[in-house]
Amino acid sequence: MIGFSDTFGSRATIIFLFICLALVQNPAFGAKTRHFKWAVESMYWSPDCVENVVIGINGQFPGPTIRALAGDTISVELTNKLNTEGVVIHWHGIRQFGTPWADGAASISQCAINPGETFVYRFKVDKAGTYFYHGHYGMQRSGGLYGSLIVDLPEGEKEPFHYDGEFNLLLSDWWHKSSQLQEVDLSSKPFRWIGEPQTLLMNGRGQYNCSLAAAQFINSSSSICEFRGNEPCAPQILHVHPNKTYRLRVTSTTALASLNLAIGNHKLVVVEADGNYVQPFSVDDMDIYSGESYSILFTTDQDPSKNYWISLSVRGREPKTPQALTILNYFPTSASKLPTSPPPIAPLWNDYNHSKAFSNKIHARMGSAKPPTTYDHRIILLSTQNRIDGYTKWAINNVSLVLPATPYLGSIKYGLKNAFDHKNPPEDFPSDYDVMKQAPNPNSTYGNGVYMLSFNSTVDVILQNANALAANVSDIHPWHLHGHAFWVLGYGEGKFTKEDEAKFNLKNPPLRNTAVIFPYGWTALRFVADNPGVWAFHCHIEPHLHMGMGVVFAEGVDRVRKVPNDALTCGLTGKMFLNNKGH
Amino acid sequence: MIGFSDTFGSRATIIFLFICLALVQNPAFGAKTRHFKWAVESMYWSPDCVENVVIGINGQFPGPTIRALAGDTISVELTNKLNTEGVVIHWHGIRQFGTPWADGAASISQCAINPGETFVYRFKVDKAGTYFYHGHYGMQRSGGLYGSLIVDLPEGEKEPFHYDGEFNLLLSDWWHKSSQLQEVDLSSKPFRWIGEPQTLLMNGRGQYNCSLAAAQFINSSSSICEFRGNEPCAPQILHVHPNKTYRLRVTSTTALASLNLAIGNHKLVVVEADGNYVQPFSVDDMDIYSGESYSILFTTDQDPSKNYWISLSVRGREPKTPQALTILNYFPTSASKLPTSPPPIAPLWNDYNHSKAFSNKIHARMGSAKPPTTYDHRIILLSTQNRIDGYTKWAINNVSLVLPATPYLGSIKYGLKNAFDHKNPPEDFPSDYDVMKQAPNPNSTYGNGVYMLSFNSTVDVILQNANALAANVSDIHPWHLHGHAFWVLGYGEGKFTKEDEAKFNLKNPPLRNTAVIFPYGWTALRFVADNPGVWAFHCHIEPHLHMGMGVVFAEGVDRVRKVPNDALTCGLTGKMFLNNKGH
Repeated sequence: MIGFSDTFGSRATIIFLFICLALVQNPAFGAKTRHFKWAVESMYWSPDCVENVVIGINGQFPGPTIRALAGDTISVELTNKLNTEGVVIHWHGIRQFGTPWADGAASISQCAINPGETFVYRFKVDKAGTYFYHGHYGMQRSGGLYGSLIVDLPEGEKEPFHYDGEFNLLLSDWWHKSSQLQEVDLSSKPFRWIGEPQTLLMNGRGQYNCSLAAAQFINSSSSICEFRGNEPCAPQILHVHPNKTYRLRVTSTTALASLNLAIGNHKLVVVEADGNYVQPFSVDDMDIYSGESYSILFTTDQDPSKNYWISLSVRGREPKTPQALTILNYFPTSASKLPTSPPPIAPLWNDYNHSKAFSNKIHARMGSAKPPTTYDHRIILLSTQNRIDGYTKWAINNVSLVLPATPYLGSIKYGLKNAFDHKNPPEDFPSDYDVMKQAPNPNSTYGNGVYMLSFNSTVDVILQNANALAANVSDIHPWHLHGHAFWVLGYGEGKFTKEDEAKFNLKNPPLRNTAVIFPYGWTALRFVADNPGVWAFHCHIEPHLHMGMGVVFAEGVDRVRKVPNDALTCGLTGKMFLNNKGH
Repeated sequence: MIGFSDTFGSRATIIFLFICLALVQNPAFGAKTRHFKWAVESMYWSPDCVENVVIGINGQFPGPTIRALAGDTISVELTNKLNTEGVVIHWHGIRQFGTPWADGAASISQCAINPGETFVYRFKVDKAGTYFYHGHYGMQRSGGLYGSLIVDLPEGEKEPFHYDGEFNLLLSDWWHKSSQLQEVDLSSKPFRWIGEPQTLLMNGRGQYNCSLAAAQFINSSSSICEFRGNEPCAPQILHVHPNKTYRLRVTSTTALASLNLAIGNHKLVVVEADGNYVQPFSVDDMDIYSGESYSILFTTDQDPSKNYWISLSVRGREPKTPQALTILNYFPTSASKLPTSPPPIAPLWNDYNHSKAFSNKIHARMGSAKPPTTYDHRIILLSTQNRIDGYTKWAINNVSLVLPATPYLGSIKYGLKNAFDHKNPPEDFPSDYDVMKQAPNPNSTYGNGVYMLSFNSTVDVILQNANALAANVSDIHPWHLHGHAFWVLGYGEGKFTKEDEAKFNLKNPPLRNTAVIFPYGWTALRFVADNPGVWAFHCHIEPHLHMGMGVVFAEGVDRVRKVPNDALTCGLTGKMFLNNKGH
């Protein structure tokens, strides 16, 4: 009895100490605050074997991967070491409940962090999933400011699928022209298009002047790449053992390119999209639009004496960028042994039926939360390419977004009248607008109005695509919503009509934070405006956003508690407080 | 009598109205406030016939010329239309009495103006002279942010020299690499030198791929330029009539190059330096360092059936940049007729005796204000090239300046303790330091301390040059002081000693705002700390300043009246007021 009691006593002490420790760390049992100290700095790097300058974090490109457990708090103390540029970081897919000022959207949630200054991003990652982070000021994402953010289930909880190991691929596209020059191009009169990316990158690694595949396999005169393996542009090879199942996390932070991913000879089973479980389905290749993330499972059931290609190709635009390749390397085969078969052939760039088929396969995993069956507020957003005073722009319901100098979160919270246009932006477009044709008058106007959403209301957004400025052109636009996940109720062709509502999927629509509109089509989304704050909703193609393709939603801003001072020291909020001081 | 009285009456009315109008315009009779509205924006331009991006103002490069009368107030409402970069403008040579916050030095007098925001520079131009303005944040001056500022004598006052017409040449140097990339180069480990400029510009115009002079005249394979005349890189031809005297205002805002200017077959008579009259003297060619301005007179006494070269050459660094040329075109000769003689041959780049001879010819015009005969405070500033953690830097008394996030003017005025290092920076260097040799230990430290000067005290600064990191190298450094003019008491060779004081010129030293230190030499300056504010004093070579070659002076900050809020919304001043608000 003494022995038992002793054991019990020390166990109790250990448990007590553990509880104390946990409480010190975080009031939520088991959850931790994970601290990071980051310096953002321009630096030389060779992402595609061509020396260039990237925006790095702590000397790394892409930035460090953050890994945390659901329920943890992330604290990133970010110092801007750029010379003259402000900086912010958006935590893509993290909803920022209770911390809207940490969303990292310049002019919306905070003032850009000035050179030499430090801002602390402190927020909770409440849901396991595959996320990423990136710059959200000017075109700094194009400049290389991005990295991965992976949230695992809390200890003791299990994924609803099995895997033996995992990999992470952060996908991006890369130009040899600096993002600053790209910004000037896009803002020039006459307009200068930045062109297609020179290289596609996987985890910041690509090859511009050479190819991993032998010349007979690829339609180019590139020589075969030779790597020692420690080059910044050496491919990230995926080393696997036979007869195992692997989870591949895939995220696209491309500035422009829509992508198609395939693993030669292997099926891909999609299990997660944007941090939400989906009903597993199997494909040979998958499309990934900028702003999206997926987890796929693949099983190493092929001949282990061979290696296999992992390929990445451009979709939705006539591809002028070579396929990116890396190798799935089976143990014990040498990683330097090239696959014997050619790299996977991507679907034709404009085979939209293939893309739509993929999108339509994505359903919420059984048992997922269902959307409200009705909506309180419907907003129809027409995406058009336009001209304003000779400049080429994108506009939503004929308004091209120009962000104000004062972030909306502060100006709405503190009732500043002159920080932005308080007239409600249009919630529809003229009924006679023909989305299938060039607009007879493509003029539009600049604007910075806000869609004010009633707190906790159910909002439907119908994203309506249209013909661009050129005849017979309608682009793909992946739209990303900050602060929320939305249900994707459906995709349709042509102009959305009231009758299309009957086709909405209210049974098992997937939750996403990014959804594409296909050329000449519409996409219907539903979300609940339950997150006090101000939230960007925009095309995730960075040049399109730069050219005005976005809107701003606000909800329950009166419920937002004290916004940290550091987020407000610019524009009219900065001056407001200074004026109140009256020194 | 009635007629006379009538005339008298209407004259009196007119005079009365005129006085009223003048009083409305400005309390100082006759002085005006001149309003300007500027937008700073990156834009495509071809300064040297090669397309590139410059920082322009209102679509112009260089920015618009400001012309005012002494006593006028300038009001520039500047909107930053850059995408992600802050901006400020320094009014080089304007002392900013009573308006130290308008000096336009980022981190010193104000917060950088954020993108989308507007700041009003309002200041008095109290002294006639030839000035200029330029960016003073990061290396935006290298990026093309500059223009001319010319202050004429008030109506009724006359210059102490005669001229029939005038021209203005703003001189600069131009790289094909962007200033952002240059900043990254200079901040890289290992260090990357930006190299010599590709082109020298006169009023923003230069020729990279061709030469105005026939091939037999120049040591290059360049072809002869062909211009229609309306190209942005077409040379600015100076059209003159025979037998007249012209005033040529010359200003150098080069990032790096020291220059030599000559007009073939014509003598140059120097009459003004940095907005101060000098005793006229005649030369065949003249050196101009970055940050300096001059007025010279030349007389068109040559054969009017010919044209003549105006040439600009690099001094003080082994020249890898072609001579810049334009044409002095005599009426009625055609401007397209090339001079028959070769362009002026510049002195050898390292003929420092020629340079020193020119500097030593500059004396204050008779009757100018004399310096105090004694000083209250002497500061000796040793300029060295150093290494810190593998980075290449410049340092003053072994401290390499890194500007703080909070501008000094606000942090000193409001007594903020943590905005910068309050320890006094060193006022001398170790007596055993051998300025003629490489330092045995070239390590230095970063710092941001301030030299606190007693208000109205007379300050001597001895600028001491030394050997750089490489053996047998000692660079030229033109030092520029904000907020003041100083008397240049003398130049000397080797290490300054107490005995050198005997050689000081206290009789007619010229007043300047920029003075050069020659290789391995010293330069002695004297000024009265009579301008409440915080003032940069730095090498005007932009890469050197970027690498830490500057110090900060503060005087009478308690006498500074309310600093405009707009200058303070960053760093700790921004947060201070927000915290006081306590919302």
